[in-house]
Amino acid sequence: MIAMKVHHLYSGGKDSSLAAWILSQLGYEVELVTVTFGLLDNWRYARETAERLGFPHRVLELPREILEKAGEIAISDGHPNNAIQFIHERALEALASLPEVERVSDGTRRDDRVPLLDLPKARSLEDRFGVAYIRPLLGLGYKTIRELTGRLFVVEIRESEELQKADYEVELRHLLRERGIDPLEIFPKSHYQSRVLGWREDVDRP
Amino acid sequence: MIAMKVHHLYSGGKDSSLAAWILSQLGYEVELVTVTFGLLDNWRYARETAERLGFPHRVLELPREILEKAGEIAISDGHPNNAIQFIHERALEALASLPEVERVSDGTRRDDRVPLLDLPKARSLEDRFGVAYIRPLLGLGYKTIRELTGRLFVVEIRESEELQKADYEVELRHLLRERGIDPLEIFPKSHYQSRVLGWREDVDRP
Repeated sequence: MIAMKVHHLYSGGKDSSLAAWILSQLGYEVELVTVTFGLLDNWRYARETAERLGFPHRVLELPREILEKAGEIAISDGHPNNAIQFIHERALEALASLPEVERVSDGTRRDDRVPLLDLPKARSLEDRFGVAYIRPLLGLGYKTIRELTGRLFVVEIRESEELQKADYEVELRHLLRERGIDPLEIFPKSHYQSRVLGWREDVDRP
Repeated sequence: MIAMKVHHLYSGGKDSSLAAWILSQLGYEVELVTVTFGLLDNWRYARETAERLGFPHRVLELPREILEKAGEIAISDGHPNNAIQFIHERALEALASLPEVERVSDGTRRDDRVPLLDLPKARSLEDRFGVAYIRPLLGLGYKTIRELTGRLFVVEIRESEELQKADYEVELRHLLRERGIDPLEIFPKSHYQSRVLGWREDVDRP
């Protein structure tokens, strides 16, 4: 059979790691892709997790203007949701526009509010770039995600401000600080994030 | 590890068969469940396909009043969408209410209009019955479903009126005929349905 390659947006967290595993279980050849704006090198945490999980990994640098625009949105709104949504849509578009990319995927879940493409936006992404857009977690609730990640991964959970990972929001928080704004005025005070450290020992690895 | 059992609504078509395969790839122990109202024995087509695919199968008989109510809805609306949606919700509830059932699933897809539970209805099903509701195809578009089913299954595609399968609509059409109504006045004229005949020879079977 011809290999089916998918380019999967990846932060190193448990959702995007679970989605990557599901894609591999479905027979896809998975390449993980972490976005950066070049402000920080926090993409290295995603790379480290990708290596521990055994998936190939690349870094996709997006124009810094996108992060700056996201910063303006977050400051204007007083909360980060639309800014995170904006970055995610631009990241999917940048990935889908690469000539070798036929399938793009991410770890967005049924119960997520942001980032999440509604049905018209999902179809528009596919139509504009001629790709398939795959969201392995979209039909899964929190119970199912918890039981699968619990079986698969060793996970570290910490406050967002303390956790070293490769989410968009790390560079967004950094940009806000550079502009003299305390991220805690915009992001929720208590916001736990996860980072996958590796496979559990008894997992059949892809 | 403890077995994770899921009860999966199953018609023998390619969507519900693909969803069953995905669940098995995720480590679930899958039992297929086909609904009947006792008018016809078209559930036998689903059982035959379930046996060819190697999954255990059960038949769940729903009260005939549900089909009669669906018939009234279809006649009143002049199209079958709300009737099919009504049956599907009652089928999920009946399955979720069985004491041994912890996880229910179905083959509904991102691009389906009916049957499809919106997010509040999906969460309500989970909360009312204390189950997890899993939709393996919800994050997949038609391209992805086509490439996966093409790899996995030998599929027969025919006009709905000709195809022998175990969809809700077969008994709904029958009920309408019993009441002197031509189903073609209510269902779309040209409506192709699929039925899975078996695995492709080169598939790693679950």
